[in-house]
Formats: sequence, structure tokens, C-alpha cells
Amino acid sequence: MPELTRTDAVFVLDLGDDENRFAPAWLEAVTAHLDTVVAGAEPAALVTVGGGKFYSNGLDLEWLAGHGDEGDRYVAAVHELLARMLSLPVPTIAAVNGHAFGAGAMLAMAHDFRLMRADRGYFCFPEVDIGIPFTPGMAALLQSKLTPAAAVASMTTGRRFGGPQAAELGLVDGTVTQDALVTAATESVAALAGKDRGTLAAIKSTMFAPALATLREHGN
Amino acid sequence: MPELTRTDAVFVLDLGDDENRFAPAWLEAVTAHLDTVVAGAEPAALVTVGGGKFYSNGLDLEWLAGHGDEGDRYVAAVHELLARMLSLPVPTIAAVNGHAFGAGAMLAMAHDFRLMRADRGYFCFPEVDIGIPFTPGMAALLQSKLTPAAAVASMTTGRRFGGPQAAELGLVDGTVTQDALVTAATESVAALAGKDRGTLAAIKSTMFAPALATLREHGN
Amino acid sequence: MPELTRTDAVFVLDLGDDENRFAPAWLEAVTAHLDTVVAGAEPAALVTVGGGKFYSNGLDLEWLAGHGDEGDRYVAAVHELLARMLSLPVPTIAAVNGHAFGAGAMLAMAHDFRLMRADRGYFCFPEVDIGIPFTPGMAALLQSKLTPAAAVASMTTGRRFGGPQAAELGLVDGTVTQDALVTAATESVAALAGKDRGTLAAIKSTMFAPALATLREHGN
Repeated sequence: MPELTRTDAVFVLDLGDDENRFAPAWLEAVTAHLDTVVAGAEPAALVTVGGGKFYSNGLDLEWLAGHGDEGDRYVAAVHELLARMLSLPVPTIAAVNGHAFGAGAMLAMAHDFRLMRADRGYFCFPEVDIGIPFTPGMAALLQSKLTPAAAVASMTTGRRFGGPQAAELGLVDGTVTQDALVTAATESVAALAGKDRGTLAAIKSTMFAPALATLREHGN
Repeated sequence: MPELTRTDAVFVLDLGDDENRFAPAWLEAVTAHLDTVVAGAEPAALVTVGGGKFYSNGLDLEWLAGHGDEGDRYVAAVHELLARMLSLPVPTIAAVNGHAFGAGAMLAMAHDFRLMRADRGYFCFPEVDIGIPFTPGMAALLQSKLTPAAAVASMTTGRRFGGPQAAELGLVDGTVTQDALVTAATESVAALAGKDRGTLAAIKSTMFAPALATLREHGN
Repeated sequence: MPELTRTDAVFVLDLGDDENRFAPAWLEAVTAHLDTVVAGAEPAALVTVGGGKFYSNGLDLEWLAGHGDEGDRYVAAVHELLARMLSLPVPTIAAVNGHAFGAGAMLAMAHDFRLMRADRGYFCFPEVDIGIPFTPGMAALLQSKLTPAAAVASMTTGRRFGGPQAAELGLVDGTVTQDALVTAATESVAALAGKDRGTLAAIKSTMFAPALATLREHGN
């Protein structure tokens, strides 16, 4: 399960050691940790990272298959997590330690920045190959963070991008070795941890207003 | 006139051997060929290419000058072609074999991808120089596919971009020699031909919903 | 105070020798000079540049602090200047000779193109650090000109970008030495000075319609 630690101003949210799929309990745990991150008034920034081979494999399709009647509520909860990360009032960076697939990759895209392990792991939107089109909210999120060429190349092909390819396309901002990943991510947001939260919240909410509205109003 | 051939899953639509302007009969022929491309259920992908010095020189201004009372219907038909290509439920790539001007360049931009001959031919939006501003639908299409800097550089200047310059700006995704053009374009979409059509249609329609709505609703 | 000179078709608007903040009198002078630039029918293009260490330091916060009751009108006037530059019916380029901060950097972004001195000066949006979030209009302007990654990197961090970094991120289109700045900027737009103004006005107004509407309708 997700665990939160803190070093000075920087919170590190470990998303877990397995596939880190968005099971309901996992969503609740992550949400509670985000509450902790933004609860204080002191400087804060957030790094998220997975502990094993995965950053996150996204939607918990197995759980969803067994709870069809809760599908709408589940998707709304996923949308809310993405919206919350997109507008979190502290600087955020995803340290993509391994595979980031589907909603897991979307969660990474919702951060301010992304740093990816260079040698292993894939960044991938498999939606086109598994017959699950992006919801309008998910598409709005991704398109608010990607160039048009990167959006087409990643959202319509199901292609898997290794770190260097992901960086070249702009899916992530850069790559480093696995050993340096959390340290580099931490350093990059530590310098930004002192930003006034109300101002940063207002800036992100204004910049991403259309995507946030689509994620939250349509809830689909 | 446009001709359609097929090799395995990949359809190649030859736009013609002359300027390949959007004459009404040309529009009808292209539309009928697109019907063929999407008619089956088996894997399919589309390459478009011109046979001579031109990919396409765009609007048939000569015809239009002689049919002023049909102007609105003509522009609506052009918009519909652009919208259809933008949301075609199979992977698409324009093999830009030579000059792509105006609406011809717009048609190329409506594909998922563009590959351009490296040594000859220009990619150009001459609208600013011929006194024909982009319609809202055309501008929405182009801006949904270009970075802001590329949109300004190409849409406000009338500048002609050779292959390497077009690739550097992101008007096209890459360049190859003329000999390799159709083969390289074919290979790049052949690998994507098996995508489920309903899913791909839903993804493109969601991603480009604003541009599609502007092209189709306003019809101007 | 701002001064306008002309060499052949190219107007050079010198924004002043000090910080070139947007004092009310400065705004009036710039507006009057823009009237002159677009008054004729002959070919014209615009270069803006500062005369000292600054391109412009943006809002006149000191004046604003002493005229709180005029704040809304002042911000509306700034929005109107940004909207006007964004849609000016002649080609425009900002020659960023030195520091461009806040609304000064926004004014540069409202031009069609930006060329920056390579060795000195910073391009910076300090809004997040001074507790003044971007208005919806200002954010819409900047996001209509920047890639998503560049918008996040510049608008949420308060980071100062030297010329080469600004060019790498796409905040400016290129850099040159200070000696060559105005000459290079002039040459780049001189070739575009003959564009038909009605057509160019229509193109820019269509391309940037959402940002222009947000700048002008909301007036905040």
C-alpha cells in the first residue's frame, strides 16, 4: 500500500511495490496522503514513485470486472484523483521508476513534472489496444500536458516508450539512472517548495481550468 | 483522378498526377475511396500520396471563381473532408511527395502522421498572401495539430517550408528520400492497422472534438 | 517614455531606457504609437525593444499600490494592450534586449515572434513568487503561445531564464548578440511587412479568438 515519508520540505509518496493499480483502498490511501501533504502551512513539495518494477499499471480492471454496478463511482474517483494532482497547491513531480501504463501514466502526466528511469520501464497508453477509449476528462488532461504530435503518437498507437523515447517526445521532462531517480526528483522540487500555496493553487487552477472542469463536471 | 490500391492491410490513395486540387469530382472520388477504406472489418490503414510534383495544391479556386453561388456548399464539402480525415477510424499517414499548399497542406495535417520527401517540394499555407483567411474550422484543425510556435510561423507568414524545415518545425513528423517515401509511410502504419476501429474512432473524436465541431457546425 | 522611429517599412518602438513599467502614461504612449503603426495602408511591421537593461519589468506595482480604486481599470488597460498586440494587423517581433518580467514578458509573448539577447537579461514570470496569480486572460495569452511543458516550467516556478534557456524552452524563437539584436529582428519582419492587413488581422483574430475573448470580455 502507498506510504508517505518526508525529508525536510519534500514528501515522497511511495505508490507501492507491486503493480500499484488503482484499487479502491489504494485510491483512499493515496487521497489521505495527499491530504497530509497539503495540510500544513510550511513549505512542501511532492515526489511520487513506485517501489518495484512499476510506477503504476492504472485502473484495477479485475476489481472493476467484479463490481460493474460501482463502475461510474469508481471512474469518478479516478477522475477526482487526477484532477486533484493536476491542481495540487504544491510543486509535484513523478519519479517514473518503471512501467507507467494507462491511468498510471495519466497520474504521472497530472504532476507538474516527470523524471523517468532511463534504462528500463515503459510509458504507455494502451487504451486503443484494450478497447477502452479515453474519457473526455482523461483526454483533456493528457492534451493539456502534451504537444499535439506527442498526443497523437502516444494516445492513438498504444506504443510503449522507454525513458529516452518518452523524453524525446516530451512525455517526460528527462531521464536519469534508477539510482539517482528519487534524489534528482527530490532536488528539482525542493527548490520550489516554498511557493505560496494559495498563489500556486490559483495558477494551476486557472491554467488547467478546462481539463479540471471536464474531469470533474462530466465525471466520466 | 484519385485511385485506391491495397497491399495487405494498407490502402494507398493516390491523389492524382497533377496539382490534385479539390475539384468537386475529386472530392467525390476521394470520399468514395475513404468509404471503401473503412467499409470492411479487417485490419486497415491509409497512406495518401500524390503521383507527380504535387501532394495537393488545395482549393480549386478556378472552379470556385466560376461557381460563386455554390461557394458555401463547396467550402462545407472541404470542411467535411478535413473532418472525416481528422477522425478516420483507421491509422492515417500523408506521404508528402511534393508541394502541399493551402487546403492540400490542411488535408495532410488532418492525417495522424506526415512523412515528407526530403529533397524537393514545399509545405505552405499561402492564405495570408492570397487574401483568403483561414476559416475558424481550418484554423482549429491546424492548431489542434501544431505547437503554437509552429502555427504562428506557418499560418501568419505564407512561408514555404522544404522537407527538413517542415520536420524541424513539426509540420511533418520526418523526411525520407522520394524512393523510400511510400514504403516508409506504409510500414509505419501497417503496424497499427489492427487497431479496433470503434475504439480508435472514439479516441480521435474525443481528442479533436473542438476542431471537429468547428469544422462541421459552423461549416465555414 | 516610448519612442517610435521608422526605417522603410519597419517601425521600431523603443519602450524606454529604464524599467519600462506599465505606468498609465506609458500605456497611453505605447497605444498611441501602435495607432501610428497601423494607421497607413503601406507595408508595415513592428519591432519593440528596450533601451537599457530592461525590455520591460511589467506592471507598475508602485503606482497601483497608490491607486487601489483604479485597479480594475488599470488591469483592463493592460489586458487591452496585450490583446491589441496579440492581434495587431502587421507582423510583430519583440527584441528582448534585457530583463522581461511579468507583464513585460507577457507583452513580448503577445508578439508574433521573439528574439532575445544571448548573453544577459532574464525572461521570467515571477507571479507565483509575488503572490499575484495570472488573470484568466493573461494565462490564456501565455498558453496560446507556449507548449504545455514550457507553460508549466515558466508559469508555476518563477524561474528566470537567460536567453539560451529561454530559446531552448521556446519562450523565445532565438537569440543573437546584443549588437545584432535590432538589426536581426528588423530583417526578420521586414520580409513580412507587405502582408495584407485585413487578411493578417483576420488570421490572428481567428487563431487567438479564445485568448482575445478572455482578455477582453472578462477584463480581469
